[in-house]
Amino acid sequence: MNPQPSEFRDLLEVFDNPAPQRNFTIEHHCPEFTSVCPKTGQPDYGTIVFNYVPDQLCVELKSLKMYLQRFRNEGIFYEAITNRLLDDFVAVVQPRRLRVESRWTPRGGLNSNIIVEYPES
Amino acid sequence: MNPQPSEFRDLLEVFDNPAPQRNFTIEHHCPEFTSVCPKTGQPDYGTIVFNYVPDQLCVELKSLKMYLQRFRNEGIFYEAITNRLLDDFVAVVQPRRLRVESRWTPRGGLNSNIIVEYPES
Amino acid sequence: MNPQPSEFRDLLEVFDNPAPQRNFTIEHHCPEFTSVCPKTGQPDYGTIVFNYVPDQLCVELKSLKMYLQRFRNEGIFYEAITNRLLDDFVAVVQPRRLRVESRWTPRGGLNSNIIVEYPES
Amino acid sequence: MNPQPSEFRDLLEVFDNPAPQRNFTIEHHCPEFTSVCPKTGQPDYGTIVFNYVPDQLCVELKSLKMYLQRFRNEGIFYEAITNRLLDDFVAVVQPRRLRVESRWTPRGGLNSNIIVEYPES
Amino acid sequence: MNPQPSEFRDLLEVFDNPAPQRNFTIEHHCPEFTSVCPKTGQPDYGTIVFNYVPDQLCVELKSLKMYLQRFRNEGIFYEAITNRLLDDFVAVVQPRRLRVESRWTPRGGLNSNIIVEYPES
Amino acid sequence: MNPQPSEFRDLLEVFDNPAPQRNFTIEHHCPEFTSVCPKTGQPDYGTIVFNYVPDQLCVELKSLKMYLQRFRNEGIFYEAITNRLLDDFVAVVQPRRLRVESRWTPRGGLNSNIIVEYPES
Amino acid sequence: MNPQPSEFRDLLEVFDNPAPQRNFTIEHHCPEFTSVCPKTGQPDYGTIVFNYVPDQLCVELKSLKMYLQRFRNEGIFYEAITNRLLDDFVAVVQPRRLRVESRWTPRGGLNSNIIVEYPES
Amino acid sequence: MNPQPSEFRDLLEVFDNPAPQRNFTIEHHCPEFTSVCPKTGQPDYGTIVFNYVPDQLCVELKSLKMYLQRFRNEGIFYEAITNRLLDDFVAVVQPRRLRVESRWTPRGGLNSNIIVEYPES
Amino acid sequence: MNPQPSEFRDLLEVFDNPAPQRNFTIEHHCPEFTSVCPKTGQPDYGTIVFNYVPDQLCVELKSLKMYLQRFRNEGIFYEAITNRLLDDFVAVVQPRRLRVESRWTPRGGLNSNIIVEYPES
Amino acid sequence: MNPQPSEFRDLLEVFDNPAPQRNFTIEHHCPEFTSVCPKTGQPDYGTIVFNYVPDQLCVELKSLKMYLQRFRNEGIFYEAITNRLLDDFVAVVQPRRLRVESRWTPRGGLNSNIIVEYPES
Repeated sequence: MNPQPSEFRDLLEVFDNPAPQRNFTIEHHCPEFTSVCPKTGQPDYGTIVFNYVPDQLCVELKSLKMYLQRFRNEGIFYEAITNRLLDDFVAVVQPRRLRVESRWTPRGGLNSNIIVEYPES
Repeated sequence: MNPQPSEFRDLLEVFDNPAPQRNFTIEHHCPEFTSVCPKTGQPDYGTIVFNYVPDQLCVELKSLKMYLQRFRNEGIFYEAITNRLLDDFVAVVQPRRLRVESRWTPRGGLNSNIIVEYPES
Repeated sequence: MNPQPSEFRDLLEVFDNPAPQRNFTIEHHCPEFTSVCPKTGQPDYGTIVFNYVPDQLCVELKSLKMYLQRFRNEGIFYEAITNRLLDDFVAVVQPRRLRVESRWTPRGGLNSNIIVEYPES
Repeated sequence: MNPQPSEFRDLLEVFDNPAPQRNFTIEHHCPEFTSVCPKTGQPDYGTIVFNYVPDQLCVELKSLKMYLQRFRNEGIFYEAITNRLLDDFVAVVQPRRLRVESRWTPRGGLNSNIIVEYPES
Repeated sequence: MNPQPSEFRDLLEVFDNPAPQRNFTIEHHCPEFTSVCPKTGQPDYGTIVFNYVPDQLCVELKSLKMYLQRFRNEGIFYEAITNRLLDDFVAVVQPRRLRVESRWTPRGGLNSNIIVEYPES
Repeated sequence: MNPQPSEFRDLLEVFDNPAPQRNFTIEHHCPEFTSVCPKTGQPDYGTIVFNYVPDQLCVELKSLKMYLQRFRNEGIFYEAITNRLLDDFVAVVQPRRLRVESRWTPRGGLNSNIIVEYPES
Repeated sequence: MNPQPSEFRDLLEVFDNPAPQRNFTIEHHCPEFTSVCPKTGQPDYGTIVFNYVPDQLCVELKSLKMYLQRFRNEGIFYEAITNRLLDDFVAVVQPRRLRVESRWTPRGGLNSNIIVEYPES
Repeated sequence: MNPQPSEFRDLLEVFDNPAPQRNFTIEHHCPEFTSVCPKTGQPDYGTIVFNYVPDQLCVELKSLKMYLQRFRNEGIFYEAITNRLLDDFVAVVQPRRLRVESRWTPRGGLNSNIIVEYPES
Repeated sequence: MNPQPSEFRDLLEVFDNPAPQRNFTIEHHCPEFTSVCPKTGQPDYGTIVFNYVPDQLCVELKSLKMYLQRFRNEGIFYEAITNRLLDDFVAVVQPRRLRVESRWTPRGGLNSNIIVEYPES
Repeated sequence: MNPQPSEFRDLLEVFDNPAPQRNFTIEHHCPEFTSVCPKTGQPDYGTIVFNYVPDQLCVELKSLKMYLQRFRNEGIFYEAITNRLLDDFVAVVQPRRLRVESRWTPRGGLNSNIIVEYPES
């Protein structure tokens, strides 16, 4: 299943990049992400890190928080979430570069991290 | 002795990669691995880290746990286990890239790590 | 809004580089930076790191402290501050290379870092 | 004084590499190394790290421990030990690559690390 | 002010490199360095790290300690000290490569690191 | 508002204490607790620690997890939750002693801990 | 100078203790406190920790934040602030017990903590 | 179910306390304990800490290791194991005082510690 | 040799305790202390911690720094310094209670701490 | 076997306590202790901590180092060493109070600490 266009992404707001003439890096750490495992119905908990080089737009921090909260009761797998977060961010913020990393708390004695990049390195 | 085709690998289950159109990275940390030293009969304890770029398939997390538990009473050396984990994973999940690292608790005042990569870097 | 020429930058003082014949690196960590969010009026807190290769001039440390304190009651966004700090430093100290990193304390459960470099890497 | 052929190295035992068809990395940490300073007669304490890519042979862990213990009452300088450990290991294990690092506890308020590589990088 | 030939450097003693036939790395950490700020007369405290590849000579550790202690009541700026330490070390030890890093405790809420390399990278 | 009898507490299951003849201590750490702030509608995140001396009953771990998940979309303040968790636990498990501690992630630059004990110390 | 009745304390808001029938403990950590040294005019930075047993009232968290921000440009010494924070809190919240601790960042190579308790232990 | 007389305890060996004329404390940390959950059949992992004041006997360290390994494939709950370890140790070593603590890795997002003491404090 | 009345103590300045009506605690950490070993002539480095309950007077922080710097080239043993710091502080500040702790960096592989209290506990 | 009068204790030297009129505490950490297991012939490694209140005498630090080095090739068990260190120290230094703690590196996956006190608490 490929990630689908997201109805959530409309929550993301942007503002004008104050320095579009140069490449610089913005990193947002979101340690309070939670969603639901579609297989077990149990909640998952993780940290999401967005690392990007803005082009004409920057993401507005409060809207990013509201957007991420929409996944709170959503049933979705680790790998699919991480790709969907990247797709939504690229669609709305149109960055020059973006790296999304999700780091999940242990389940069954294993813990997982997923890393997706745009464009591919 | 080269690692042999593994009867354990049938335990590994897969699901369809939700984003096969791009290269992205999945990392699973398994800090509760244990096997048995074939020389002394004493248990060994370690952490196994799988870091891979999926192609068409991703490994299912619970099956990975069950697969690793099969080594609990198996007599096998550090170097052989790590290579065997790589061979099994490659055979079943067919990733674009894979790195397996095992980190072992101290024995006789020494502690060891083994790193195997596919394809070789 | 691009960062503007800064009336604060006149506070920055310099002294002669004691070794202009070679490239070497100077790093200043400023963990007590504070400014005000222009949207909410609430204070922001962060660490600023300047990492540079001097040319003919080095920044005088006490003047750097006084300069940074001028932002204490200034309303300005994360992204704009970091770019402005770089522009001011380049204008006064004229380094061969400069990297400015700002690391901010959490707001709404998210925390952010911004990195700007001169010249662009 | 260049490091000499070592009578200690006969203690090192090897076993067949279980996966000679690929390059992989083995790392042994030995935090309990001790020898004697030839100048002061005082004991030195350090951690030795062997990081290597095996060719046809791997070093047997218990023999490595016994080999390292032979230096317990040996008078030898930091720089000479580290080179000698590398020479002995290369002579017996014949690895594709090897890095030996020694990290010493403080003496006179200073602490030292030595790193030797084969072949030279 | 460029760093001057140093009367202190005569304190540095050397011994023959036990393995001049290869490039290897020696690192000395000196966490107890202190000098005096020439502007305020107040003491400064820092850690000095020497990281070098010896050629024919290695620095003798006790003489390095005595040399560094000579700066205890010397008035000299961070940037000048670090360059002077490099110049003295190069003049006496004649290494193939050298990196000197000084890391200073906070003053006025800011803390600084200086890094100088020979030859320039 | 005093905490009310809880409809959630019916989720808590118990098993017979295997050693009721002695006082011993059981501690459960639950780092994945989340509820909703009734004032702002925003999610809160925290760690709950139960530390108790069982009498005739012990709490079953999986039922404790299911019970805590019921607060996921509940609007309730820090102080009220912590008291309610204690009241529910006492009502169902009837321990000899109990200490409930909740530790919350930062909000507005402040972070809070609440500690309730039974019986009062 | 003894601490005076504070015009700032009117900013502190309270709500009804949800469990006044028992003694329990509430702790608020405020790592973003800043005020101004009345002697040097330089900003001070610290963490304030309130640890209290509520009686009939609890302090409202957002009002505590607004109250603490009022000291941002206030000239006041470490010892006086800490006593004043205790006096204000006691006057408004009327707790059964209170401990206020302030931990300050280094000045001149020294860092200080102040602890005040009500009632005196 | 109360803990039963243990057939495993015969593995524990003792030696004569070298200083029975005084009370002193011995602590053994065993971070590699593993058993099996009798409900799920899944392995559990934990650290066991024995802290005791010997009377006429001390436990022999290697026999303690062999004793603990016997639980490797035993189905037993956290609370029952910890009480059983105490009962076995008291029966064989007859200490003046003993404290057994077990600390378990997370299951379902929760992690647990159990503490049992002899005689009861 | 008992500690003597100190000519250095005249450097200590005091200010009026802002809250003499209550007992409260002030702690100053001084991580940059240095003196000279009278036996070897080598510098010693340590952290000094003053923890006291003021009576009518508090120590002024800058004068404490200047006082401590006077020991920079003074030859004095660990045990004697710590007692002398306590005697000087008591003589000038006349606290209700005082604890002085000195923590020294390693010499010859050993590191030491000294703790002196007034009045004796 | 009870600890015997020690021929090593003659190495311990003392000096006059500079403040015998008060009780104060001296702590020496010795992280580089090594001896030999009398059962296996293998070296043991540990940290020894002496914490004492001197009476008329203090232990001289260098002699303490030389005394501890005498155990380097001595075959002796953990429990016996720790009691012997206490007995030797009491015999020579005659402190008001003494606590000796030994902390040993892992053997067979277990690590141990021993604590002995004089007089018994």
